Amino acid sequence: MKDIKSYVEENKDRFLNELIDLLKIPSISADSNYKDSMLKTAEAVKENLLQAGCDAAEICETPGHPVVYAEKIIDKNLPTVLVYGHYDVQPPDPLDLWNSPPFEPVIKETEIHPDGAIFARGACDDKGQMFMHVKALEYMTKNDELPCNVKFMIEGEEEVGSEHLGWFIENNKEKLANDVILISDTGMIAKDTPSITTGLRGLSYIEVEVTGPNRDLHSGLYGGAVANPINILSKMIASLTDENNHITIPGFYDKVEELSREERVKMAEAPYSEDAYKKKLDIKDVHGEAGYSTLERASIRPTLDVNGIWGGYIGEGAKTVLPGKAYAKISMRLVPNQDWKEITQLFKKHFESIAPDAVKVEVKPHHGGQAYVTPIDNIGYRAASKAYEKSFGKTPIPQRSGGSIPIVTLFEKELKSKIILMGFGFDTDAIHSPNEHFGIWNYLKGIETIPWFYKYFTEMKQE
Amino acid sequence: MKDIKSYVEENKDRFLNELIDLLKIPSISADSNYKDSMLKTAEAVKENLLQAGCDAAEICETPGHPVVYAEKIIDKNLPTVLVYGHYDVQPPDPLDLWNSPPFEPVIKETEIHPDGAIFARGACDDKGQMFMHVKALEYMTKNDELPCNVKFMIEGEEEVGSEHLGWFIENNKEKLANDVILISDTGMIAKDTPSITTGLRGLSYIEVEVTGPNRDLHSGLYGGAVANPINILSKMIASLTDENNHITIPGFYDKVEELSREERVKMAEAPYSEDAYKKKLDIKDVHGEAGYSTLERASIRPTLDVNGIWGGYIGEGAKTVLPGKAYAKISMRLVPNQDWKEITQLFKKHFESIAPDAVKVEVKPHHGGQAYVTPIDNIGYRAASKAYEKSFGKTPIPQRSGGSIPIVTLFEKELKSKIILMGFGFDTDAIHSPNEHFGIWNYLKGIETIPWFYKYFTEMKQE
Repeated sequence: MKDIKSYVEENKDRFLNELIDLLKIPSISADSNYKDSMLKTAEAVKENLLQAGCDAAEICETPGHPVVYAEKIIDKNLPTVLVYGHYDVQPPDPLDLWNSPPFEPVIKETEIHPDGAIFARGACDDKGQMFMHVKALEYMTKNDELPCNVKFMIEGEEEVGSEHLGWFIENNKEKLANDVILISDTGMIAKDTPSITTGLRGLSYIEVEVTGPNRDLHSGLYGGAVANPINILSKMIASLTDENNHITIPGFYDKVEELSREERVKMAEAPYSEDAYKKKLDIKDVHGEAGYSTLERASIRPTLDVNGIWGGYIGEGAKTVLPGKAYAKISMRLVPNQDWKEITQLFKKHFESIAPDAVKVEVKPHHGGQAYVTPIDNIGYRAASKAYEKSFGKTPIPQRSGGSIPIVTLFEKELKSKIILMGFGFDTDAIHSPNEHFGIWNYLKGIETIPWFYKYFTEMKQE
Repeated sequence: MKDIKSYVEENKDRFLNELIDLLKIPSISADSNYKDSMLKTAEAVKENLLQAGCDAAEICETPGHPVVYAEKIIDKNLPTVLVYGHYDVQPPDPLDLWNSPPFEPVIKETEIHPDGAIFARGACDDKGQMFMHVKALEYMTKNDELPCNVKFMIEGEEEVGSEHLGWFIENNKEKLANDVILISDTGMIAKDTPSITTGLRGLSYIEVEVTGPNRDLHSGLYGGAVANPINILSKMIASLTDENNHITIPGFYDKVEELSREERVKMAEAPYSEDAYKKKLDIKDVHGEAGYSTLERASIRPTLDVNGIWGGYIGEGAKTVLPGKAYAKISMRLVPNQDWKEITQLFKKHFESIAPDAVKVEVKPHHGGQAYVTPIDNIGYRAASKAYEKSFGKTPIPQRSGGSIPIVTLFEKELKSKIILMGFGFDTDAIHSPNEHFGIWNYLKGIETIPWFYKYFTEMKQE
């Protein structure tokens, strides 16, 4: 394995160009207008997996967007790594805030990425990180360094809640059988501070609709006498958190895992500067639940964010309308022990109960998933830690992330193996935002680190 | 004047078709894409005025959309009526709620309009009502029944706050000199309950922008730690009214005119059924300021309505974004003695003061106008009342409307004459809403009533 560094160095331009080709296809799973692009992307992923050395690859239909499955089985008695990733991306809106079109990748240097970064929707989340695994496999097969079996399950619905992946797994348990699941869909702290994600928050995503009168009204003739659904929705949203930014939904915190004082002290040791954090986001102050630090608020505590709101006249100029309807998309990040389905029901019941008689309210649960925590004493984590030590020259820090990969708990439940979250992006890479990017250094470092994981995992498993 | 009824009857199809031609031009003043349509509409209005008998008509440039001015001066010693109206219309959104395209007029019968109504944006507000005056003039000139001078000032910016009409009036005081100003841009109670509007609410229209982080963020990685501008905006809007639906802006009510007990008792005598009102709007309950009736809330009390709100992801599906910005358009209806500029400043100061440090807030005043009350003992009102008695066979009720024509107080101040608001639309005509319409009966009744006003006003003025 000593020549992985030089293999990456020799092939890096091709590695970049192949990724760029993949990024050009607008695989927006949330928008049904992009169905053809989704299929085209799945085809491209399949072809890349075959070229990287897989024996077999297929596009598996689901009731939604298809899953790409591929494998290279070298010996049934050897361990098997299952790589999970996704080829779909977040919608790129708001388009006017992108400095270059989201599906025309460009390479630019930034302060954090002096070696350049690829700017495109999906560059980091997750096409770029998923593609590191394809290129790591290529290295291992071309150089006869693959020590075990490998399977790939690359889905197309991660950004819309992995709606049909449970169905796919249920129907393909044998095919997907493995000893460890490897995912690169998270981040790491910094170049000189490698980290492995050991916790993810759960999620409950909901859409609400508030209906007032049966049509838009003139705000002069009816204003003051008829409930305005935007005013009402604002009051309802406002009441979901109190003056300490605690969530007011009855029962919401009942099962929240409270960390011990020691765990919180240990968390506080992670390198972090609140001034730098505020400066980077250009905010005068942070804002969150009383009694918790910024790092805690963004990882071990549940939250409630409005992800979108709309109603009435939102065009140029003025319109004196009292609208008939107002809408919001609201999501809650959850922590271990909170059940997303139960929380969704608590939200629904509460939201309906606080609506005044003058409006009708509809609460539509969208999708969700459970929080997840990986124990750090399992073979998978230890192999990953050793791989980072080899490529970074430093022991990685175990880190709880605030993000969610809703499907992760299902993997563990259905496939009975541990999940290792080896993420190589940075928090600043603007995933889900305009100008998403992925550092070239990070991309290549990922390709370099992954083969070491295969080596150590196989060795430890066989010990 | 005895043959006005038969003139209307003989010409009604042409009167309808001429109005329909005008309604086909999408004169949306708020949207700069419709600049050409605005000019085309102004041209059409000018041509119609000349054909109706005006001696002169011109399109007067302003820094914004032009004003159409026309006149017929028969004798400088006779009184002069100035007709004000507007040829611009409200934006038609939301388009998907229209049963027929807003600029393709269709005639349909409704329960309230068994003789049919013209459905189109601007049918009632204000092309249809303005055009009644053009056709009334045609009758008077063709039949030698015009008893006085008449001037027309038809503007193109009423729906965006009449931004440049003050400038136009200031620069054309002599040209616009008159004895009474006649406007049909309001409504009446019912076919068998004619009414003349004697009061209008003032208006302050404002746009607010709340900025959190300098870019859209991933709600998993930052949610709970960074202020979400939608959550904050909701809290700020919610706090603008208390549990009694009183507006909480300090000083807001200081100058509000409180009506006497007698006046309120008299108001309560107007025909009104709360059950019918709720049924028509399909609402379970009305909603407004504690201590006031629905009629009072919608006319003599000030209000605060959010006319539009937007922020974050509002497309199909889900996006877990913590947006950088959130926006709202907020308007307040004001009552006599509240100064709209002072109220706008009070709003701005208060809104900025309640923003937490974690966000930046920008308050952009849009436009506004003062409330207006017409005394019912002046010649103009008495002449109008007598005209209604002649055509409806009933004395009209003086009625305070909740709507605003912001420019009205300026007319009185600059041109020193009284304003008479002879409106023939119904509250149910869906002005500013999808499926706006204007009853054919109402349109023709307006044309029939207006010449009587000219006759009686000239007679009373000369007494």
